[in-house]
Amino acid sequence: MSSILYLLGLGPGDPDLLTIRAAKILAKVDVVAYPQKLGNASLALEIAGPHLPQKLEKMPIALPMKTNRQPAKDAYDKAAKNLGKLLDEGKSIAYLCEGDPFFYGSAMYLFSRLAAKYPVEIIPGISSLNAAGAAIGRPLVSRDEILKILPATLDDKILLQELKNTDAAAIVKVGRHFGRVKKIIEQAGHGPGAKIVEYATHSQQSVRMVSEIEEEKLPYFSIILCYRGQEIWPERDICP
Amino acid sequence: MSSILYLLGLGPGDPDLLTIRAAKILAKVDVVAYPQKLGNASLALEIAGPHLPQKLEKMPIALPMKTNRQPAKDAYDKAAKNLGKLLDEGKSIAYLCEGDPFFYGSAMYLFSRLAAKYPVEIIPGISSLNAAGAAIGRPLVSRDEILKILPATLDDKILLQELKNTDAAAIVKVGRHFGRVKKIIEQAGHGPGAKIVEYATHSQQSVRMVSEIEEEKLPYFSIILCYRGQEIWPERDICP
Repeated sequence: MSSILYLLGLGPGDPDLLTIRAAKILAKVDVVAYPQKLGNASLALEIAGPHLPQKLEKMPIALPMKTNRQPAKDAYDKAAKNLGKLLDEGKSIAYLCEGDPFFYGSAMYLFSRLAAKYPVEIIPGISSLNAAGAAIGRPLVSRDEILKILPATLDDKILLQELKNTDAAAIVKVGRHFGRVKKIIEQAGHGPGAKIVEYATHSQQSVRMVSEIEEEKLPYFSIILCYRGQEIWPERDICP
Repeated sequence: MSSILYLLGLGPGDPDLLTIRAAKILAKVDVVAYPQKLGNASLALEIAGPHLPQKLEKMPIALPMKTNRQPAKDAYDKAAKNLGKLLDEGKSIAYLCEGDPFFYGSAMYLFSRLAAKYPVEIIPGISSLNAAGAAIGRPLVSRDEILKILPATLDDKILLQELKNTDAAAIVKVGRHFGRVKKIIEQAGHGPGAKIVEYATHSQQSVRMVSEIEEEKLPYFSIILCYRGQEIWPERDICP
């Protein structure tokens, strides 16, 4: 293979939800790179694990956990420089991305630093959104309805207004915002149809009604699905 | 295998974008069922083709092309009855779904008729949304931004208002609505960043600036991506 960087979507967690294309690329690249928060195991590496040849060169990319942007920018500058060196040597690299690389993914920060100078290919992956719909056993959205993807980090006022004006919504990045978001969902009239999926397709996957959860914080890998649209279907009773 | 119905996401078109899980299921089921519009070839069957064992039992499900709902309801009633018979005989069935089964997918109409009585499993697939982002080489959405999925069939007023209030949007079901939608995109201030992907990941895939298209109608498999958010990145020059 010649010099190329793949920003490679791994899907939501189950290694069998990689695409055939992703698995083929992992079988032939020279280097696999992946994000790794300081002191943590890499979830991306864990998902890709069953598909990696044993002797593949591995390059963890250390990312700071602070919300301050400067340390993250510095880390991506450094990572882009290191990846650039490998590309200059003619190596092919797969950068592992949980879910889909371009759906709220951090892969964009490498893309923005490298795509003008090197061949970069995006391999789409199944996003947590589609995995969550499958887990709940209820369509995300139907026919002529709007589906809004809303980060839980939005201001209360915006979140409330956007939720009020839609039949279907997915709230991402829930984590420590759960308590606040739950109140807004109820205010917007979405309480009865709101379900939360934690760790979609992972072994510890859980599906619960939002209304039945008392905690204030949930795992970062949580997604809330709201629906109060026109289509009525018998849901399977998979919530406790 | 015992009696089970898989609503199986095939991804956007490239047979290599099937998941490993989908390919494994296709290799072992008793019957493959798929939607087929009267007089047309089945796109779903074409995508799954390379993964199907030669002697697999095939069951096309005829769907009328009218927008009138009653003929479609009758067709799904009939299909559910026929699939139910096979499930009663203990057969395993994969129903082929383009993209993701629960993202504006017609699989919901079989799900609603069969899930209460039979084991039904949803296999998520890569949606045209994620495929289109990869094709354009620009993230769909970043950080704390909202992403709205808007059917082109919405009323002008609603479409305009929702587009005005968002940094990122995907307009689906474009087809014959293109001319009208183009005007609304411009009114909403999304003209400069709007790109359209036709036939994402298929051999005839094309990516164009919305502003440069004069036609009034485009293929049904078209998706428009709008972005005017905070993240600036060098886009690859892949538009003509």
